[in-house]
Amino acid sequence: MESKKFLLNEKDIPQVWYNVIADMKVKPRPLINPGTKQPLKAEDLYPLFAKACADQEMNYTDRFIEIPDEVRELYRIYRPTPLVRARALEKALDTPAHIYFKNESVSPVGSHKLNSAIAQAYYCKAEGVTNITTETGAGQWGAALSMAAKHFGLELAVYMVKISYEQKPYRRSIMQTYGAEVIASPSMSTKAGRKIITDHPNYSGSLGTAISEAVELAMSTPNCKYVLGSVLNHVALHQTVIGLEAEKQMELAGEYPDTVIACFGGGSNFSGLAFPFLRHNLSGERNTRFIAAEPSSCPKLTRGEFQYDFGDEAGYTPLIPMYTLGHNFSPANIHAGGLRYHGGGAIVSQLKHDGLIDAVDIPQLETFEAATLFARTEGIIPAPESSHAIAATIREALKAREAGEQRVILFNLSGHGLIDMTAYDRYFSNDLANYEVGDDEIRRNTAQLEKII
Amino acid sequence: MESKKFLLNEKDIPQVWYNVIADMKVKPRPLINPGTKQPLKAEDLYPLFAKACADQEMNYTDRFIEIPDEVRELYRIYRPTPLVRARALEKALDTPAHIYFKNESVSPVGSHKLNSAIAQAYYCKAEGVTNITTETGAGQWGAALSMAAKHFGLELAVYMVKISYEQKPYRRSIMQTYGAEVIASPSMSTKAGRKIITDHPNYSGSLGTAISEAVELAMSTPNCKYVLGSVLNHVALHQTVIGLEAEKQMELAGEYPDTVIACFGGGSNFSGLAFPFLRHNLSGERNTRFIAAEPSSCPKLTRGEFQYDFGDEAGYTPLIPMYTLGHNFSPANIHAGGLRYHGGGAIVSQLKHDGLIDAVDIPQLETFEAATLFARTEGIIPAPESSHAIAATIREALKAREAGEQRVILFNLSGHGLIDMTAYDRYFSNDLANYEVGDDEIRRNTAQLEKII
Repeated sequence: MESKKFLLNEKDIPQVWYNVIADMKVKPRPLINPGTKQPLKAEDLYPLFAKACADQEMNYTDRFIEIPDEVRELYRIYRPTPLVRARALEKALDTPAHIYFKNESVSPVGSHKLNSAIAQAYYCKAEGVTNITTETGAGQWGAALSMAAKHFGLELAVYMVKISYEQKPYRRSIMQTYGAEVIASPSMSTKAGRKIITDHPNYSGSLGTAISEAVELAMSTPNCKYVLGSVLNHVALHQTVIGLEAEKQMELAGEYPDTVIACFGGGSNFSGLAFPFLRHNLSGERNTRFIAAEPSSCPKLTRGEFQYDFGDEAGYTPLIPMYTLGHNFSPANIHAGGLRYHGGGAIVSQLKHDGLIDAVDIPQLETFEAATLFARTEGIIPAPESSHAIAATIREALKAREAGEQRVILFNLSGHGLIDMTAYDRYFSNDLANYEVGDDEIRRNTAQLEKII
Repeated sequence: MESKKFLLNEKDIPQVWYNVIADMKVKPRPLINPGTKQPLKAEDLYPLFAKACADQEMNYTDRFIEIPDEVRELYRIYRPTPLVRARALEKALDTPAHIYFKNESVSPVGSHKLNSAIAQAYYCKAEGVTNITTETGAGQWGAALSMAAKHFGLELAVYMVKISYEQKPYRRSIMQTYGAEVIASPSMSTKAGRKIITDHPNYSGSLGTAISEAVELAMSTPNCKYVLGSVLNHVALHQTVIGLEAEKQMELAGEYPDTVIACFGGGSNFSGLAFPFLRHNLSGERNTRFIAAEPSSCPKLTRGEFQYDFGDEAGYTPLIPMYTLGHNFSPANIHAGGLRYHGGGAIVSQLKHDGLIDAVDIPQLETFEAATLFARTEGIIPAPESSHAIAATIREALKAREAGEQRVILFNLSGHGLIDMTAYDRYFSNDLANYEVGDDEIRRNTAQLEKII
């Protein structure tokens, strides 16, 4: 009755990433220059991103892209990660479903974010870049990039949303321990920051502002690139090590998932787990269901519009074709900070539009209820973000019980919650609420955007 | 140049624990009843501890003790843990020494403490116990026991030192998430607690008081046992899975350590790593050096006296033959809360007395300097406790560089520091100090104790 772990050897760390775009019959629409309204080419992204990342972003043809040796070397600190059959959870739910989870929480920063942080830091280093910059909300991405930047000897400046900087000092300290400079955003270090501070002296920051500051710093600093932790195609690409490993591990378990579930913010961990399994759907070989689990308070895939929208609040980025709540949408301050993003990214949105993946939205209290059950059965306290995947899994497992069906569900445990215990504290003190978004609010925020279809 | 991981399969999780007492030529002195001054028998401990644990405590003859299947099953959540060759650290130190560490931080609660928590909770369950109780200082032990107790369906009450309860809310929340009841000590739930609160209304608690409360609760509650996370022989026994695994992994690496290092509080992680290697010294086969790394602010092995002393401040426990600073010694409030214990336990103290192991004491600032270097090279932020082992390792590696010797050093990374980031914050803010203990203070605290020799 105990939970069972399926382990791989280091030689099983994938040699390649999987580029799902190559297999998509309908490709994602191109990124568009908001000024000229023309599609972007990879070269247009070279000033901002590492060339290799820009090329990967626009690669619509190569199914597999080789993982550099230096990246695989560093993956070995925590990869391959375990796949676990969650028998204790199954028993607690009294479900005939077999529940598996891929445990990405075992990385030294506690989440899957390292999979792309290592790759992006490596490419910057290989191209002679000396400085990189990024933004972070809750801090999972900033922590991962800090560790990777230090390894490759890159200087890193992280713009951290001011309210998180003040309320989540643990994540800030983690970044500093790895040697990164952490700046509360808005800051006086950029024009964008100075303007906001001058106009609104008490403004507590937003991801959009932090992106603007990081982009400005990258563009105005010699030999400095900007690095992003989700949303973009090349980030999803790097994360496919999760699903490629899980595929081999499901073979060890002697099963194949009929349902694959991950939480959804900008798509990094969902894409990472789902895409390698999705390729067998795209080839007609399998018929797995994919469920992106997003917060009810930020329901872009379930309730947003499929439009061209900016990636940031300030409108500095290219236009991205995606399900969006509008780049000015301001999500409620839920504890799953990593899921508070307005858009679904180009690939996932296209897949959703074409009916190749599903999405559900889950209220905050249901996620903490699920997280607590998971901790008390499987022994791991999940991150508030990952708890959305657990809640969606529990819904499916209970449906299987109703139907008396022996199903196989695989979800991604994208991170642990040991650095998020204040959220649990508030949950146990009945100090958390659910947040619903009104149709009016969504309409208002998406009305001015350019419809794709 | 990258660090290299040595992994075992689940079938390599040890089948037995190693009982070093069986191989010791000079056995530890017996525990003594403070009233009668007579040696204790296992039966004398039955009212307080699980019978199996009491029997293990007094087992001086069996070299290996079988690990129950149910315990091995649960070990599989995180075991076998990796052994890592720390090449990035070696490079940063420019040392010819080969540095290995056993990574116990990968457990779901972030430390080695689960190794004994699982065993003790299992034995309680197997003997029909329904309730258990313990004390915790910083909270690593309490967190591990909470997880294990929930798994075996035991009710758990944890007395947490009041100042930690208030200052370390993350660890408290972890225990609550696993379903444990956490009580700030001193509390109104016991006679001992009520007396202290009445006499000293603002008293912020101590480990000694918390032990007294837990012991009183266990003795006055039907079907309730007391459980301890360090110091005692059976706890050290359970922790030997660390060293037994590491031994196989060093074989995979093709080397054998000439120096084995672990931090030292009550001895649980030191014993766990060291004893399996020590058995080859005791048999005359090897000549490895063992170093227990303790804080300068709590230097029982390096500067304490070898005497009979109580295990708790209040004097409720049997007398233990050990190096001690006196049970009334009040260590400075360093961040390595797990190392703030006055005594060395019976086995380790006897080994130290007989010259079979060494000890060093390390000032707080050196441990954080070492921790930061480790985080920035090996990518893992260590617990403040484990950082003592890292600092001692760095000292040895630098000596090897001086001497031009290619040595092989193995240390235990007993836990990660992700839940201790306030300590790092204070270090980076130059807000931490070193604490030295005066000879007078030690003499004063040990003067009234009964010398062993």
